[in-house]
Amino acid sequence: MEQSTAALAPRGFDLGQPVIDVDIHCNVPSAQALFPYLSAHWREYIAYSAFKGPTDTAYPAGAPTTALPGTRPAEGGPPASSLALIREHVLDAWNVEVGILNCAYAVESLHNPDTAATMAAAVNDWMIHEWLEQEPRLRASIVVPSRVPEMAAKEIDRVGGHPGVVQVYLPVVSEAPYGHRRYWPIFEAAARHDLVVSLQFGGSPGNPPTGSGWPSYYLEEYVAMSQVFQTQILNLCVEGVFDHFPTLRIAMIESGWTWLPSLMWRIDKDWKGLRREVPWNMQPPSDYVRERMRFSLQPLDASPDPRHMLTLIDQLGSDDLLMFSTDYPHWQFDSPEEALPAGLSPTQRRKILSENARDFYRLSKQ
Amino acid sequence: MEQSTAALAPRGFDLGQPVIDVDIHCNVPSAQALFPYLSAHWREYIAYSAFKGPTDTAYPAGAPTTALPGTRPAEGGPPASSLALIREHVLDAWNVEVGILNCAYAVESLHNPDTAATMAAAVNDWMIHEWLEQEPRLRASIVVPSRVPEMAAKEIDRVGGHPGVVQVYLPVVSEAPYGHRRYWPIFEAAARHDLVVSLQFGGSPGNPPTGSGWPSYYLEEYVAMSQVFQTQILNLCVEGVFDHFPTLRIAMIESGWTWLPSLMWRIDKDWKGLRREVPWNMQPPSDYVRERMRFSLQPLDASPDPRHMLTLIDQLGSDDLLMFSTDYPHWQFDSPEEALPAGLSPTQRRKILSENARDFYRLSKQ
Repeated sequence: MEQSTAALAPRGFDLGQPVIDVDIHCNVPSAQALFPYLSAHWREYIAYSAFKGPTDTAYPAGAPTTALPGTRPAEGGPPASSLALIREHVLDAWNVEVGILNCAYAVESLHNPDTAATMAAAVNDWMIHEWLEQEPRLRASIVVPSRVPEMAAKEIDRVGGHPGVVQVYLPVVSEAPYGHRRYWPIFEAAARHDLVVSLQFGGSPGNPPTGSGWPSYYLEEYVAMSQVFQTQILNLCVEGVFDHFPTLRIAMIESGWTWLPSLMWRIDKDWKGLRREVPWNMQPPSDYVRERMRFSLQPLDASPDPRHMLTLIDQLGSDDLLMFSTDYPHWQFDSPEEALPAGLSPTQRRKILSENARDFYRLSKQ
Repeated sequence: MEQSTAALAPRGFDLGQPVIDVDIHCNVPSAQALFPYLSAHWREYIAYSAFKGPTDTAYPAGAPTTALPGTRPAEGGPPASSLALIREHVLDAWNVEVGILNCAYAVESLHNPDTAATMAAAVNDWMIHEWLEQEPRLRASIVVPSRVPEMAAKEIDRVGGHPGVVQVYLPVVSEAPYGHRRYWPIFEAAARHDLVVSLQFGGSPGNPPTGSGWPSYYLEEYVAMSQVFQTQILNLCVEGVFDHFPTLRIAMIESGWTWLPSLMWRIDKDWKGLRREVPWNMQPPSDYVRERMRFSLQPLDASPDPRHMLTLIDQLGSDDLLMFSTDYPHWQFDSPEEALPAGLSPTQRRKILSENARDFYRLSKQ
């Protein structure tokens, strides 16, 4: 970067009201930080195998998009691993009423199902004890061993009743599209606890992240993640998940959304021609998007022409779909104009900054 | 369909000027139709193996999107296998000055490389003798064994000099993204003959067509094809293909394009953060799209609000990108309003209906 990084260090912008931030990342400092939440067997397993945590290719440690300068704690550990810094950089700086923690602990990269389930449970207990119970403004998404849906459902049943748990975390890149019936135990458990299910940027299940194999560069994986979101949304709409689970709500986190109008037009058009294949879809698929899905605001893949952003929000066909997010510590904006599109009506601002998330996550007023 | 199919039979709409149609499909009637272009060995091989042609999952014979009623010849054979019908339904009906034939003969589904190369050559000879040499308004894309790029390059050298050949046909779903260096012999051969390379809807290389595995329904494969185009465009932009081949032009056929503005914003933004990975990209990736790529107009995944279409064309940042297509015999429109967005300026109409394609394919006035 040619600009001074000091000028870009984390700071909040005054958006004129308290906000609900649906995407604050927290990172496990080290495998050892989870030892209080692991049995002697697993502590020994980690020590013996030199396991340092799952492989996370979605956020390489040194990539500029991964973390703003200044988000790494002075005492060591990865960016966003310190509650004190998250209080300073996010909760206080942005006037956050409620912030939802998303811990991208990639247990789907662990092909040993017991390790995946054990590490997911340890991360969830760590989040509950060291974050939720220390800071009343925080809520959390729980990590689940998504490759084995029955084990994921058990973990949802184990911790889904905690009042700070509001969401299940699924990495958007998966072995198979999430609408497949093999994944339905996850949705069933989430519905049982009235939790939102979220699809989140990243995922390392082992298969290539595009429909034409492996790309060569991280830049491509990063940009192409929005295409994975598109195929997952399509799949969830047509497989009957929303019909089978009538209270299910699904959030797309870090998906981008400026491509969403075009996708809805395309699905609806082709559904008209081919809907005999999916007779349970009694409405155009875009109805499921508008009624049952929400999208985090960042990353905002914005037009250089700000007028286009208002047109895009108009094209969504609803003011209910977007939810404010800082995406801390990822580097999404350097100015207030990048944090929220300009020219929104007061109602639109209020919905995006807090009310859409409050309704979707069933958050009562603090 | 509840409507009468008779009302929907193929007919042209008067668009006020001759058009260049960049996407007319022609289909091989049967494996036997290629016998005049195959050696005795291969004729025996086909008879012995009961080979009926490659597996084409992109256009199932009975799906409503595959073919308009009335496009199947009375004498038998698949839709769009008769020159007489294409003259009547497309060339005359739409006042076509030049029409480009795209034969979706899926040789990439043949894992025997010699069979793939042989069948591709037979299809090309069939198109040259039975279509191009019978009808001066037609041009053709040539089929190549794309899984073995050196063999594909040989086929391009064999027939690429024919004056009716203007383009190389590559199915958009591939084993690896086309920017990978293994595919560069194809681009080198195309550049040698000044042919456009096209990425076209479909492809059956064997890998799943999404970044999260196999979907369940054809509706999903059909809709999700636009995501495969997106990852290919991204890959072609960043891998250095356009820098290495300075005259290379690439057409996206049946890709859709209403998602393109959002994709360009996203690539450019993330390239700014991660461009050190791809130092040969000296310009924002969207520059490559605007300078070196073109898009067929159909399928037009249109907003129900016609004003949005003009905004989308404005968001493309260039009036040069779209090229008119009927996509015959696929079922893309039932009314003139669906054939071309309303409200275009006279210059925009002329460019989309003929001049963009004339420039891109180096077609002189007839």
